[in-house]
Amino acid sequence: MYTCSQKRMEDKIKTFSKFGDAGHGGITRYTLSAEDIQARNEFKRRMEAIGAVIEVDDVANMYATIPGSDPNAKRIVMGSHTDSVKNGGNYDGILGVMSAMEVLETVVEQKIPHKHPLTAMIWTNEEGSLYPPAMMVSGIVCYDFLPEAIRGKFKYEDMMASKSVLDASKTFGEALEKSGFKGDKKYRLNRDKYKYMFEIHIEQGPILEDAGKDIGIVDCVLGMFNYRFRFYGQTVHAGTFPMPKRKDALFAAAQTICYLHEEIDKLGHPELVYTTGEIVCHPCVHTCVPDYVDFCIDVRHEKPEVLNEVLAVVKSCAEKEWAGCRCEVERMWNRDTVYWDKKLVQYAKEAAEESGISHQVLHSGAGHDAQFASYMLPTTMLFVQSKDGLSHCEPEYSTPEHCTEGATILLNTVLKADAE
Amino acid sequence: MYTCSQKRMEDKIKTFSKFGDAGHGGITRYTLSAEDIQARNEFKRRMEAIGAVIEVDDVANMYATIPGSDPNAKRIVMGSHTDSVKNGGNYDGILGVMSAMEVLETVVEQKIPHKHPLTAMIWTNEEGSLYPPAMMVSGIVCYDFLPEAIRGKFKYEDMMASKSVLDASKTFGEALEKSGFKGDKKYRLNRDKYKYMFEIHIEQGPILEDAGKDIGIVDCVLGMFNYRFRFYGQTVHAGTFPMPKRKDALFAAAQTICYLHEEIDKLGHPELVYTTGEIVCHPCVHTCVPDYVDFCIDVRHEKPEVLNEVLAVVKSCAEKEWAGCRCEVERMWNRDTVYWDKKLVQYAKEAAEESGISHQVLHSGAGHDAQFASYMLPTTMLFVQSKDGLSHCEPEYSTPEHCTEGATILLNTVLKADAE
Repeated sequence: MYTCSQKRMEDKIKTFSKFGDAGHGGITRYTLSAEDIQARNEFKRRMEAIGAVIEVDDVANMYATIPGSDPNAKRIVMGSHTDSVKNGGNYDGILGVMSAMEVLETVVEQKIPHKHPLTAMIWTNEEGSLYPPAMMVSGIVCYDFLPEAIRGKFKYEDMMASKSVLDASKTFGEALEKSGFKGDKKYRLNRDKYKYMFEIHIEQGPILEDAGKDIGIVDCVLGMFNYRFRFYGQTVHAGTFPMPKRKDALFAAAQTICYLHEEIDKLGHPELVYTTGEIVCHPCVHTCVPDYVDFCIDVRHEKPEVLNEVLAVVKSCAEKEWAGCRCEVERMWNRDTVYWDKKLVQYAKEAAEESGISHQVLHSGAGHDAQFASYMLPTTMLFVQSKDGLSHCEPEYSTPEHCTEGATILLNTVLKADAE
Repeated sequence: MYTCSQKRMEDKIKTFSKFGDAGHGGITRYTLSAEDIQARNEFKRRMEAIGAVIEVDDVANMYATIPGSDPNAKRIVMGSHTDSVKNGGNYDGILGVMSAMEVLETVVEQKIPHKHPLTAMIWTNEEGSLYPPAMMVSGIVCYDFLPEAIRGKFKYEDMMASKSVLDASKTFGEALEKSGFKGDKKYRLNRDKYKYMFEIHIEQGPILEDAGKDIGIVDCVLGMFNYRFRFYGQTVHAGTFPMPKRKDALFAAAQTICYLHEEIDKLGHPELVYTTGEIVCHPCVHTCVPDYVDFCIDVRHEKPEVLNEVLAVVKSCAEKEWAGCRCEVERMWNRDTVYWDKKLVQYAKEAAEESGISHQVLHSGAGHDAQFASYMLPTTMLFVQSKDGLSHCEPEYSTPEHCTEGATILLNTVLKADAE
């Protein structure tokens, strides 16, 4: 058993939290922004300091590699992303990069014998906060391996043309050209050169904290679907149009959200999560009855049969009239549950047990780059306890102890994979 | 009895509908935009053609006046606004300007004897679509006469600083300077020079159409209040956070909208109207539980005791917890019912009866510049039937027959006031 350095981990957390510091506890660090480039340069500086060789591929993914004792062995890669959502926290994504760095630093410092080259990686644009979609670049790199249903969303040309949500005249492709981090396509993650992929991430939920466990051994990413509800009413003046004749699209949407909660809760699946997080209202003027409202529902569960029960409720909404409005539902996106590589999950469990760090097995409800990587390489993930389960917000927090424990389990898991 | 010209009215409707034509049946004509200036120049051209004298005040209101036979008589003014909402129709506002023009044109063409000078007027920025608030300029001009509760909203300096909703670097004051329509403050509507105010407007509701009446004799503008509901929850990840621990601000808002409909409908006031037309959701991302949602409710009725019953329902919402979220309600705006001048309303009824045009008395649910003018001068309004009750949208329509009938009643009402 080897152990990572909490002091070094804390130094990294402190340093990376400066890049995009919003001044009140969190960061905004959009992909390829000046702040992201600060983080990338810090990664390069620290990795070169331990003798790692840096490669950058054509979509700005960075790979820092230290050699192993076997010149023919493929690389074992660990990584996550440096970009954040708007007003995000100091852990989502970057913790996986810092943990990978910490593993390499520990291996070099303690001269830990290993056969395979070890790589710490930065994925570009996981959040997709500035240039949608999320997981854009792992979608590009793993394109040929993705299931047919997902692949179409990640065409290279479409991704390069993705417009900035802040300025529609700017594209991801232009940001990439200007970043100085557009490298060579030959360095992209691939099956010939890489053997296994690992990612550490914060849990982004309260399950570990509630259970009093520090680290999560993740066995799968939950299956999900996302449907959009659209309501078509009629704009009329708030002051002049009698109530019984109205076709109020916002009232229709409100009734439908309440109906969804009632009917889905009746299904009685305690592990099911569903969210109506986004709503659009037109014309959204206080003196007008809205003629158009849409919202989307995001539903996640491990079992397809449970997702299908919820889907039946979702679809049933389109058969009714709501507050005089017609309702349409449309599938935007879905994915099956992705199970991590069983052998790697087993190594992670053993490493956690041998280290004496408190842990439990859980699912990932969120999508991560590792999920796309898993179509290319055997992959698994570890979760670090999140304070209050919060993420994608400034109070997002994991203790330095837990962060270091995560890196320690990652190190020992990688060494088990290395020793095969 | 005199009659206005349908042919001339149709020509005006056709001409003014071009200024801001959005290409699909309606217009976008923001105040002081190039399109609005086209409409203003057309007004000037047509009014000068009948010998009217044009005055422009310091907030771009335009006044076209023809003399009366009594050199000491005050002016009788008729008018409305030329600006529209985004993707609005060809009648809201501009119909009142065209009707005033038509009255002057008929008086001149038919050499109708009259004592008082007659003025056709354009109010600037009634909609407030580009530079809020609505009724901005009648608020400025009638400032000293407004009730205390309303007045504070229309301070000259604040209005000049009002930011464009499309470009926060631009203000109403700058648009006014650049427009070429910033005239002299001495021309503002005032009690010394003006005697009565009249405004024709489309009904913006289906009451006349449903009753088979062409013209509405308006007796009051309904009292109203506007309250804002704010819900404070917690942003968490859609995929990772168990349902029972969530504080979902959008679900809270949806529940509250349904509760409001249920409780307010129970009060059993058929003439009551209430609208939740505007909603704001944060962060409004499909993978996040919203931590903040607000919406507003607009409630209108003639009787203060009815408004107070609804207010009790509104306030009761803040005493409950909704989907784990705290709820605040705040008063944004209210006004008492404004009754039109009884004598002028009586003239309008008589003119309608004598002309044999089908009509009925009704309330105005919407606010209009005439309402602020009524604090300064005796004032009344006429409504023209709106097809399907639609307004603030491109299908907004009134027939040329009804528009001309409105102008005819206005003309004969003004002549009764003139003959006192």
